[in-house]
Amino acid sequence: MLMKKIDGGILSPLGYRGAAVAAGLKRSKLDLALLLSEKEATVAGAFTTNIVKAAPVVYSEELVKGGGQVKALLVNSGNANAATGEQGKADVKSSLSFAAQELQIKEEEILLCSTGVIGVPLPMDRVLNGIKECATNLGAPANDLAQAILTTDTFTKEVAVEIEIDGKAVRIGGMAKGSGMIHPNMATMLAFVTTDGVVEQELLQKCLNESVAESYNMISVDGDTSTNDTLLAFANGASGVVIKEGSEGAQLFKEAFNYVNIQLAKMIAQDGEGATKLITVEVKGAASVADGRTLARSIVGSNLVKTAFFGSDANWGRILCAMGYSGASFDPEGVALTYSSRAGEIEVFKKGLPLNFDEERAKEILLEREITLLVELSEGGEVATAWGCDLSYDYVKINGDYRS
Amino acid sequence: MLMKKIDGGILSPLGYRGAAVAAGLKRSKLDLALLLSEKEATVAGAFTTNIVKAAPVVYSEELVKGGGQVKALLVNSGNANAATGEQGKADVKSSLSFAAQELQIKEEEILLCSTGVIGVPLPMDRVLNGIKECATNLGAPANDLAQAILTTDTFTKEVAVEIEIDGKAVRIGGMAKGSGMIHPNMATMLAFVTTDGVVEQELLQKCLNESVAESYNMISVDGDTSTNDTLLAFANGASGVVIKEGSEGAQLFKEAFNYVNIQLAKMIAQDGEGATKLITVEVKGAASVADGRTLARSIVGSNLVKTAFFGSDANWGRILCAMGYSGASFDPEGVALTYSSRAGEIEVFKKGLPLNFDEERAKEILLEREITLLVELSEGGEVATAWGCDLSYDYVKINGDYRS
Repeated sequence: MLMKKIDGGILSPLGYRGAAVAAGLKRSKLDLALLLSEKEATVAGAFTTNIVKAAPVVYSEELVKGGGQVKALLVNSGNANAATGEQGKADVKSSLSFAAQELQIKEEEILLCSTGVIGVPLPMDRVLNGIKECATNLGAPANDLAQAILTTDTFTKEVAVEIEIDGKAVRIGGMAKGSGMIHPNMATMLAFVTTDGVVEQELLQKCLNESVAESYNMISVDGDTSTNDTLLAFANGASGVVIKEGSEGAQLFKEAFNYVNIQLAKMIAQDGEGATKLITVEVKGAASVADGRTLARSIVGSNLVKTAFFGSDANWGRILCAMGYSGASFDPEGVALTYSSRAGEIEVFKKGLPLNFDEERAKEILLEREITLLVELSEGGEVATAWGCDLSYDYVKINGDYRS
Repeated sequence: MLMKKIDGGILSPLGYRGAAVAAGLKRSKLDLALLLSEKEATVAGAFTTNIVKAAPVVYSEELVKGGGQVKALLVNSGNANAATGEQGKADVKSSLSFAAQELQIKEEEILLCSTGVIGVPLPMDRVLNGIKECATNLGAPANDLAQAILTTDTFTKEVAVEIEIDGKAVRIGGMAKGSGMIHPNMATMLAFVTTDGVVEQELLQKCLNESVAESYNMISVDGDTSTNDTLLAFANGASGVVIKEGSEGAQLFKEAFNYVNIQLAKMIAQDGEGATKLITVEVKGAASVADGRTLARSIVGSNLVKTAFFGSDANWGRILCAMGYSGASFDPEGVALTYSSRAGEIEVFKKGLPLNFDEERAKEILLEREITLLVELSEGGEVATAWGCDLSYDYVKINGDYRS
């Protein structure tokens, strides 16, 4: 693919500016981000499937489904504005009308996202002061925005690429946050992607839906899904390059867009709460893509598999077990399992039986921080990949006293 | 219910004898148990839904489904005889033919179960010596058998009750083992129940199916299901009391049988790997029993909820969240959540909003070893209960280096 990585994260596409301030929602850290597009942008989104939805999610989902164009995105961390009832809805409205005034745009051109503690009303004086400050400080680097959306994440998650369509450059940039409650079906995470391509809403939504299935829905940290998950993609057309459905350019755009989402998703998996390792599970030879995905996700989602990775233990039995209860059908006698990392690779299981492998060698391979498990089936030709992390003492520590 | 608890575990019903020996499958601990009925017994069972089934499971499932009568049950711990291919099947056959000879009964009157390490062939010399020793040492107390089936369990799990039907006593006894990979749908666990009632196979299987849905399928330790799960119930008729379908006696029998299974299931949940607390989740006001079960199981299955219980944190947000992604439908605005334990009770959430509760008081209640969470919904009149445990550092420790 004719694509190169570039700097600048979510602000690398033309026509976007940003601000990030410490509004006092988190202790003296950046906690409010504003993304502003100079032109109206089409927008596509995916939202949590949790029945309990935070007030800003309900609002933003409705706005995106309405199909209108937007100019701004406001994201706060530190407080999720979830389980806040009528007050939560009222706070969404106040934030919108205040931001519209400050930014001199319409309320319905603003999207809202929140992440953080649940059940506590937003401290609205701080939020409004923060919005005011953002509006007068546009010009922050993308990394400041990426910082402002974090909760228990340990690093910022950004990526940007440039592709060439009809001889002209189109950029796609993104940022995301994890890091607890990450699971297939948009578990607690926020991800935002911008592009300066001219992309109609329908095509953008289509690209997004297809990409979600291969990226965010293929990562798992702890199996919990949250009230606030949101993925939003913006296309403001500032490059002037039209991405036309069915064209070669559209195919390239789709691939680059998917690449950006997969990179962000992998960073989220890598930064799972307490994680010490990034686990990639590749399934080959599945009867269908759906089966492959089900198997890959079941493996990265298993607590027993995750603790085995934490202990650098080549415990193929737990992998086979997680495959067995996944719901996908396969012949256990046709399964082969191979671990690999920077330190080498080792096959541990073949045709339904464990191989007499070198445990010390396996340990060396599993002590690395990035490990791939290859699962080969004898069912067909489909493939799927999922990403996850190990389950460590620190996961228990972080979540055993999250609120204290 | 006219029922009293009695001593004697699985051997309390008339007409059963047992043996337990240290065959050398576990380091110098009891690891092989034999249960023998003097009369032929009807048998009912439930087996793992995992696609990867251990050789003894495949054998026993077929035998039970055949509907024949049996006289003996052989259970070994220390080795699961799973992922052992043709050798595993051959070892099942050798064990059976040798045991039949030693016990002077038919092969098809013997059921087999194994639990322990996966992927390692059974050391057949030790198994056969153990069977020989068992056959000549019938007369062990029930607790020896309960010990011999344990793996990482920290205590034996036994219960027995006596009921009166038509003025005559009928006994039901049981034993079980956990303790990793315990999850709805018969996750790694073995449970065995005996009775001296005269119960036809069809009725026994019906009682068992109904009871499984309320007991073993309502516990969760870590979400993994195993290759070897088996529940077996035996009725040898030694009391002479006929349990006739549709009768008052049958109703009483069913309730007592269910009580035994629920007690065993709760012990398994309480003894989850690394568990420090037994968590009971009671759902009331559900639209259907299925919804209530789905919600209760989703809560006890959530890693974030489990770590919060470990930290004695009244983190209602995670509970609401786990309900929201369970798949059951409900109105979040109609939810109330109350924690209780020996130390008292405290309501923390009502009508979609957190209450301004005393955090210190909540902590006192949550520091106890047995905690109940009451979830009240406004959907209907159905109830369901699930049991689970917290997720502790020790869970990670135990599973991070299980094989070493």
